[in-house]
Amino acid sequence: MKLFLSFSVLFFFATLTKAQPSLNISYISDSTQIKNLADEVMIRSTAYKNLRTLCKEIGPRLSGSSNALRAVYAGKKMLEAAGADTVYLQPCIVPHWVRGAKEEGYILINGTKEKIKLTSLGNSEGTNGKLINADVVEIKKMEDISRVNVKGKVVLINIEMNPTYIKTFRAYGESGVGRRAGPSLAAEYGAVAVMVRSLASNEDDHPHTGATVYNDSFPKIPAVAISTQMANKISSVLQSGKTVKAMIKSNCKMIGTANSFNVIGEIRGAKFPAQIITVGGHLDSWDLAEGAHDDGTGVVQSIEIIRSIKAQGIKPLRTIRAVLFMNEENGGGGSKAYLQNAKQKKEQHIFALESDAGGFTPRGFNLDMSLEKEQKVKEWAPLFYQYGVYDFKEKGSGSDVGPLKEIGTSLAGLQTDSQRYFDLHHAETDVFEAVSKRELDLGAMNMAALIWLVSEYGL
Amino acid sequence: MKLFLSFSVLFFFATLTKAQPSLNISYISDSTQIKNLADEVMIRSTAYKNLRTLCKEIGPRLSGSSNALRAVYAGKKMLEAAGADTVYLQPCIVPHWVRGAKEEGYILINGTKEKIKLTSLGNSEGTNGKLINADVVEIKKMEDISRVNVKGKVVLINIEMNPTYIKTFRAYGESGVGRRAGPSLAAEYGAVAVMVRSLASNEDDHPHTGATVYNDSFPKIPAVAISTQMANKISSVLQSGKTVKAMIKSNCKMIGTANSFNVIGEIRGAKFPAQIITVGGHLDSWDLAEGAHDDGTGVVQSIEIIRSIKAQGIKPLRTIRAVLFMNEENGGGGSKAYLQNAKQKKEQHIFALESDAGGFTPRGFNLDMSLEKEQKVKEWAPLFYQYGVYDFKEKGSGSDVGPLKEIGTSLAGLQTDSQRYFDLHHAETDVFEAVSKRELDLGAMNMAALIWLVSEYGL
Repeated sequence: MKLFLSFSVLFFFATLTKAQPSLNISYISDSTQIKNLADEVMIRSTAYKNLRTLCKEIGPRLSGSSNALRAVYAGKKMLEAAGADTVYLQPCIVPHWVRGAKEEGYILINGTKEKIKLTSLGNSEGTNGKLINADVVEIKKMEDISRVNVKGKVVLINIEMNPTYIKTFRAYGESGVGRRAGPSLAAEYGAVAVMVRSLASNEDDHPHTGATVYNDSFPKIPAVAISTQMANKISSVLQSGKTVKAMIKSNCKMIGTANSFNVIGEIRGAKFPAQIITVGGHLDSWDLAEGAHDDGTGVVQSIEIIRSIKAQGIKPLRTIRAVLFMNEENGGGGSKAYLQNAKQKKEQHIFALESDAGGFTPRGFNLDMSLEKEQKVKEWAPLFYQYGVYDFKEKGSGSDVGPLKEIGTSLAGLQTDSQRYFDLHHAETDVFEAVSKRELDLGAMNMAALIWLVSEYGL
Repeated sequence: MKLFLSFSVLFFFATLTKAQPSLNISYISDSTQIKNLADEVMIRSTAYKNLRTLCKEIGPRLSGSSNALRAVYAGKKMLEAAGADTVYLQPCIVPHWVRGAKEEGYILINGTKEKIKLTSLGNSEGTNGKLINADVVEIKKMEDISRVNVKGKVVLINIEMNPTYIKTFRAYGESGVGRRAGPSLAAEYGAVAVMVRSLASNEDDHPHTGATVYNDSFPKIPAVAISTQMANKISSVLQSGKTVKAMIKSNCKMIGTANSFNVIGEIRGAKFPAQIITVGGHLDSWDLAEGAHDDGTGVVQSIEIIRSIKAQGIKPLRTIRAVLFMNEENGGGGSKAYLQNAKQKKEQHIFALESDAGGFTPRGFNLDMSLEKEQKVKEWAPLFYQYGVYDFKEKGSGSDVGPLKEIGTSLAGLQTDSQRYFDLHHAETDVFEAVSKRELDLGAMNMAALIWLVSEYGL
């Protein structure tokens, strides 16, 4: 462990030393340009104002909904106002899932009926307005599903997010298996419905939705999320040896597909226009709240990159493209269309950066590219330290730019301080008021700096 | 700039290399012990529960108030519950300032009277229930006070916090001169009252209080804070050439001194009990809200250090003392008493750590100690990286441990991600709900690790 750390430091040092000839010449001018961009964003950013529009004037933006379409046109207007050279809509096909009339849920303990909050999982099938009524059986690990008798039961998949993981996305990824694969696994063993403990790192009474993925080999049983508090309560009653009955009524269903759009705004490269740099977030959101942190913030930050670079009179050497992706939450229709288009037109995508980890203070950039390119990005790291970004060690990018890997694009994702993210992610608490203007702008500012560096030096 | 950075890296590397012989032996066991402490805090911390008690059961804790005394006894109980070997109260004298009946404020523009929100500055004298009524004159820099005619006027000291400073405390320190020294300076030039733009980094309608310091050579004129929104509004009216009249009525006054206490909980050192390590936050708060981030969080984090070390069965070699200081906000009575006691008893204070920068995600430790000791602390830095703490470069500590410098104590302060701090600092928005449990616990966890390292190895 110690040795590994020392080698990292040594390597970092060696890299810097080796890089000095080129860095020495350009460091001061790069640093000055980034400071100008930083001041531009920290003083005159329109990201917060745009976010208010997305959250308060439009609101929830579920793929296929009329609100999602309103967001498309609002995004187009924002990119035009930001000064993009070209703004256009790129058609895509999205699944059209609807929640229908609000879910109803009850639990019955010792003959006492209690109303509970629940929310259908995205892409799931509901009870078709009928009341399912069955005993609850709890599992705490996925493998337990084959060990307990779930036939005819409602399965409570009660997997906590591990509080000891300092990076919350790690806990989300690990515990998320219950929401994603749990319903079909429970159906395989004969369950009639699934209640998933919300993927939340705090204890409160808000259920968090999110997509589930059915396996076509098994019945598509209803699947809802309940709050962490309710999951704890039911669990403790069951552990005391009592029985708990659950009653669930819901109306959600997949009703086909819909036409929608990615929204794209470009600044054409002054010297290498064919080399494309993408920066994006996703315009769609879940329907429970305003999709503020997920991912209104990524959208308005991407627009702010265009605005700040234009406002500073920078003429980037390579093409910078802000992409407001559609349908990240429950299908990826937008990112598929973006890749397909790039392939058809044989576009040269050298770099793509995604912001979809909440509009919190940035901490670093996750990287997914060749070691050689990774080293080039890491040589720029000292330019970011004064802006609070220091971590370039994590692997990763985001689900909207991810598909571009197929055509060899170097990928990155904004790494945020996501300690608060899973308190509100996919829940009704993900609202404009939960976003800090300074945190949002700091993210945009650091993204602008990285995008500008790639536009200037390539990768 | 580049060269400087390279030297820093080189120096950091050299330090690590030099430190390797000792670190190699102990790194794995230190890392394991810290991981155990981290898990203890992230799973079983009582900091959030204690904070709820301080904020919701007690509430505002202005020095000299009955609530401050209730907080003293609550803090004592919490330290006992945390398992401290000894818990005791240390008497101190605090100024007793009271706000009295709520302030009233109006502005008059073009004959239209508008009610405005205002809050008296701490330690200031009010209007004695009378309505002051005078024209407003604005200054944007302190030096302008001698250039404009402020005689008989209400001076609006409208100094924005600089949004381009990435570290918000820098902007707070720089702009804070208006609140601290403005009222007496305005009085020197004949003003009848001062309205200070709130020291806030966001734009909203909440005034932020905070202490002012009168210069005894001049009249103690009334001094209030107005919101950033209201300051912008008045400023734009004045700049359009119109006059603005302000009416201010307030009842605050200094009514003498009061007896109060620091609350102290100790774990006696197993090998060097005479060597004392202090970790603290302040128990008092302003009266407008619950003093959640300022500084309920520092208090409950300090208590959590005791609890987690005890819960892990650690027997620290040196004495660890959690101190809940009284009267940080408007006098420093608690920290003076603490120093005086240490001097009288000739105590050996080797290290003191303060948490008074909000209960936000930690980023580092600010240090104020000899270069040699600073290097020793920096050698521990790699132990903290996985917990998100990486910045050991800033100078500083905190105002409660600061006085210990006189007796040669090495000082430190928790550095947080304070982007949101000055949205709520000293305002009615500083409530329990604004604190994230995970962010709070991460701060406590990193503090526990540093305190444990010093208790094990000294400085």
